[in-house]
This record gives sequence, C-alpha cells and structure tokens, in this order.
Amino acid sequence: MDTALGRAAPDPSMLTFIGLGLYDERSITVEGREALAAADRAFAEFYTSRLVGTTVAELEAFHDIEIDVRDRAGVERDPGPILDAAADDHVAFLTAGDTMISTTHVDLRLRAHERGIETRVIHGVSAQSAAAGLTGLQNYRFGKATTLPFPGAHGGGDVPDSVIETIEANRERDLHTLVYLDIKVDDPTADAAGLGEDERYMTGDYAADLLAENWADELGVVVARAGSPEPVVAADRLSELATRSFGGPLHLLVVPGEPHHLEAEALEALAGAPAELVADN
Amino acid sequence: MDTALGRAAPDPSMLTFIGLGLYDERSITVEGREALAAADRAFAEFYTSRLVGTTVAELEAFHDIEIDVRDRAGVERDPGPILDAAADDHVAFLTAGDTMISTTHVDLRLRAHERGIETRVIHGVSAQSAAAGLTGLQNYRFGKATTLPFPGAHGGGDVPDSVIETIEANRERDLHTLVYLDIKVDDPTADAAGLGEDERYMTGDYAADLLAENWADELGVVVARAGSPEPVVAADRLSELATRSFGGPLHLLVVPGEPHHLEAEALEALAGAPAELVADN
Repeated sequence: MDTALGRAAPDPSMLTFIGLGLYDERSITVEGREALAAADRAFAEFYTSRLVGTTVAELEAFHDIEIDVRDRAGVERDPGPILDAAADDHVAFLTAGDTMISTTHVDLRLRAHERGIETRVIHGVSAQSAAAGLTGLQNYRFGKATTLPFPGAHGGGDVPDSVIETIEANRERDLHTLVYLDIKVDDPTADAAGLGEDERYMTGDYAADLLAENWADELGVVVARAGSPEPVVAADRLSELATRSFGGPLHLLVVPGEPHHLEAEALEALAGAPAELVADN
Repeated sequence: MDTALGRAAPDPSMLTFIGLGLYDERSITVEGREALAAADRAFAEFYTSRLVGTTVAELEAFHDIEIDVRDRAGVERDPGPILDAAADDHVAFLTAGDTMISTTHVDLRLRAHERGIETRVIHGVSAQSAAAGLTGLQNYRFGKATTLPFPGAHGGGDVPDSVIETIEANRERDLHTLVYLDIKVDDPTADAAGLGEDERYMTGDYAADLLAENWADELGVVVARAGSPEPVVAADRLSELATRSFGGPLHLLVVPGEPHHLEAEALEALAGAPAELVADN
C-alpha cells in the first residue's frame, strides 16, 4: 500500500474451496456466501455432484459473480488456469455438498500449496450428515460408506464385490452403511456404457433393485432430495423399495444395521417402515 | 384467513430443527438463517456441542430473535414448553453442528410428530465433514466414529474398551477413526467427577496422551477449531501430539488407517506430518 515505506501490498493470492451444500443456492453457509462475495473470480465443478435445486445462472445471480464451470478434464488434467488465477487474485472454487470430498479437490489444494498460494476450506453440508439427520439413524452407528456404480461402469456382476463387502463388514459389526448412488455427468465413458445421456442419476429404487439380489428381505432406507424443502425418506424391504418411485434426484440409500429402539421408532414414524421389519430385537 | 368461505388460516404449528454449523454465527446456512428469520420463537441447546466462536447474545443480535437456551433437563425431561410453543407457532430449535446428531433431538422430533406438529430439518455442517475436509483424509475411508470421555466419567480404565475396540476394528479394515472429544457443559455429574468447572473441553493433546497408552508410535491427527477462519491441523505420532498445545476448543482427533498416497501428501504438506510416518507402503 505504502511502497515508499517498503511495505508490500497485501498478497491477494488465495484459493478458497467452498462447499455449496446439498440442494440449491441457499444451501451454502453465510460464511461461504461472504467469502464468495469477496472473491475476484469463481470456478466450479459439478461432475462429482450437483445442486439439483438450482442452475449455474441462478447461482451467478444469487452471488452476483460469474462462475466458470470446469469439466473433469478442466480440473484434473488442466488445473493451470485455476491455479494461475489464484496466484494473482482471490479465487473461489465451488463444489456441491462439502468440499474436499473428492480426491480431485485435495490434489488441487496441494498443487496450490506447492505454488505458495494460500488455501482455505469453507465446509458445506454433506450427504452423510443429511442421511443421519433425515432417517433418525444415529450418526455414530454409520460404518464405512460406499458408492454403487451403474452396472457396466465396472467389471464383474451387477453389484461390485467391494460394495457387497463393505455392506457385509458393516452388518457384521451391526453398523449402518450409507450407499452413495452413481452420477454420470460429463463422463466420456457414459456413451460407451450405453447410457446415451449427458447426465444420469441412479435412483433409490434402481439401487434397491440391485441390492435386493443379495438382500431382498432386508431393511433399506431411501433418502430423496436431502437438503431440499421436501425430502422423501422411505424405509422398507429392499425388494419393496425396488418397486417404488421417489421423484427427482439426488437419491441416497442406507442399509441399516439392526435399528435401536429410538431408530426403529423414527423409521416407523418418519419413513413409513413396516413395524415388524424394524422391531426391536 | 377468509373464514366466511370456510377456509382455515394456515396452520403455523411447526418445529424446525436448525443446525448452526461448527464455529460462529456465520456457520449457519443461508436457508437456516432464513428459516430462523421466519420463526416466531427460538429455543436452543448447547450441552451436546457449542459454537466457540460466538455467544448467545451475538447469535440473538445476528438473527434478531430471542433465543431461549435450554439445559439437558429442559430438553429431555421437560420438553413440554418447546412442544407447546411449536403447537401454536413456528418454533426453531437450534443446535451446534448438524442437528439430529444427538438422540435427544430425534426424540424431540418424534414427540412433536406424535402431537401432529409438522417438523423440518435444516442441516448444518458437521464435524465429520470438516475432519475429512481439513485433513485431506478421504471421507469414504472413515469407519465408525467414537467419543473419548474424560477418565472418571465412566467405569474402567482411562480409555473405555468401546473406544479401543472401535479404533482396532477400523484399523483392521484399514479405515480412519474420527474420535470426538468429551465436552462437559451443564452436566450435573461434572462436580462428582472432580472437574470443578462448568464447562470443560477435552483437548487434542490430552486425548493423544490417553490413546498413546495403546498406540504411542501410531499416527494421529489433531484438528482444532474446525470451521473457524484459522483451524489448526497437526499430524504426528500420538506420543508427540500429547506434548503439544493446539489452542482453544473445540478439538477433534483422527486415528488414520494406512494413508494412501494423496492422503500422505496432504498430511505432510498441510498438517506437518513427519515424512517417514506417512510413507506410502
């Protein structure tokens, strides 16, 4: 500011990772909104997850900033433009849900760090919090989470062994499993897998149908549109959930361990679980 | 509104659970802030967790609403006043972090549901998201979480068997364990346990010292003041972490599984882990 006194101007070099939360432009924290207002430039990626309750144009209008949406290649193979911008200015990098969930973002943060760019993380609400909050299933009883891919997107059978093993290992310890459902956005392999659409979100009934091959009579809980004003939470046998329809994306599936008393009560009252299925043993 | 036409006024009976996030009055989501602004009355509890970056008076000023803070007995034994208020008005019930983390809140929600009061959940950022985000440890590699209580607050040795078993079981599956650290706030047993203070927060060094009895040379990661503008993240042997000081509350401790390549890089670059401790095997 006062170079005559040899003081340098404050260094604006900064990369702030901001989690936008789960649903729309109001899912961001107040702190995140203020950080975005203070940023010179904003980048975003929506291939690891998406805000289904809003559009990029609505986000831009709400935050009064232009958002440069990068595809997977534009973040992972070619992060240069983001890093160059952050070396000169205060740059915000936006993602749906929490930030840093994906290895992509950790990698970007490390590259910024290597270049001497200060980084900051402003957390967003994650699907994990929402899955516990909406189902009444206790947070501390969730084991390792897993992701169920579309069949054909991997080798082997309809459900990858890793998914089955994770659910089995959690069930052995009487823990709940949060199953993230596959999202195909901006994925060059999508066509090859015969999906034929630019974006495709696995639904809870589709996932329940896949898992019912192994656990037809076991309890599952579908959470649709977590973080929206009207989320749907439905608990039933996986084979039953497979026959239902839960509306628009995003969906999650939870395969619970044996519900404790209060969990059973919540699943019955708030998710319509058949009483005999969640009976306290 | 127009009773002459037989239409009833819209029923304002509503209990909205709002998670305030991790640190201060700006950690709430924009959606949560708007819901609180629309509420007729606000209750809160700060015995399951606390916002250390703000005060109730600051929260009241920021949101322009009076907040009736209830102690444990005032929520669990005597929820009547909250439910009575929600039967007549739109009531917001505030908690630090995410809401519904505690069974307390699920119970309150079920009681409201039984009385025909509409309920809604507005999620907040949880410590779990922050622990993954700040450490660079991958979210999908976290197993079941656990809570480390102050010694004397439970029977048995300094570290309860359940905590040891959780960490061991996660390590066997090569998973990370998030260890929540005990908080003593408004707890009638605090004096009996010889703590002699109204509020007491277990620090990361204290927790590392307790766990070092079993795992002195193992890697631990302390996260202090997650969600604040200047969080501290420190990775080292548990016995080393036990000798350090990490400043004000709240603190968390993570006992990681074997770090993958990118995780090791993040722990070294962002948390000061000794290279040999996180070397990719």
